Amino acid sequence: MKVLLVVAHGSRRAESNEEVRKLAGQLQARAGATYSGVRCAFLELAEPSIPDGIAQCIAQGASEVIVLPYFLSAGRHVATDIPAEVAKAQANFPATSIQIAPYLGKAEGVLDVMLHQADLSSRD
Amino acid sequence: MKVLLVVAHGSRRAESNEEVRKLAGQLQARAGATYSGVRCAFLELAEPSIPDGIAQCIAQGASEVIVLPYFLSAGRHVATDIPAEVAKAQANFPATSIQIAPYLGKAEGVLDVMLHQADLSSRD
Repeated sequence: MKVLLVVAHGSRRAESNEEVRKLAGQLQARAGATYSGVRCAFLELAEPSIPDGIAQCIAQGASEVIVLPYFLSAGRHVATDIPAEVAKAQANFPATSIQIAPYLGKAEGVLDVMLHQADLSSRD
Repeated sequence: MKVLLVVAHGSRRAESNEEVRKLAGQLQARAGATYSGVRCAFLELAEPSIPDGIAQCIAQGASEVIVLPYFLSAGRHVATDIPAEVAKAQANFPATSIQIAPYLGKAEGVLDVMLHQADLSSRD
């Protein structure tokens, strides 16, 4: 059983964190056959933390957790902080496969999404 | 003549700003028929600023500029700061149409990109 964990930075603005939770819900609605669940976690400033989020996935029955960094650039958070938090969780749950997917900004498809987004607005 | 201006936050890390510049170059390679150019600008911490970036688009011959916020959530930067910078530029160049596209995180297509990204990693 595979669960997707979207990891965002976390914000002091409750609405921004709420946006991420809503996004996880929308992903859940589309993830159907591939993921039995989609959850979210935050690096800081919001709950759950990454280790807590991973523990929730496992409590939900995950044998495999895919951590997807919802970040646009490969800064310290993506390069160091998220892997460190994931490593902590992995040490607590050695039987679970926990993998970190490439961060969102690295996805090839983002380019097409951006062009599409720009086109929409220029047709107003 | 339409030019796309990707607006990122800007970072103290030179590599992050370089990633945005590279992204603009990749978009340029794909934007072909729709945009005669793709440039980038930064809200803070890097150059060019948004007004300078818009001025560069116009110097390049743009009669229409589409500003695309490279942001994942609708915080103060997207809601207030970018529109304020664009309004300043618009006042300086009243003959140019300057439109702000919805920020990247709002794009429907981002969901599919995320699922695709997660799938790639879980096939390792």
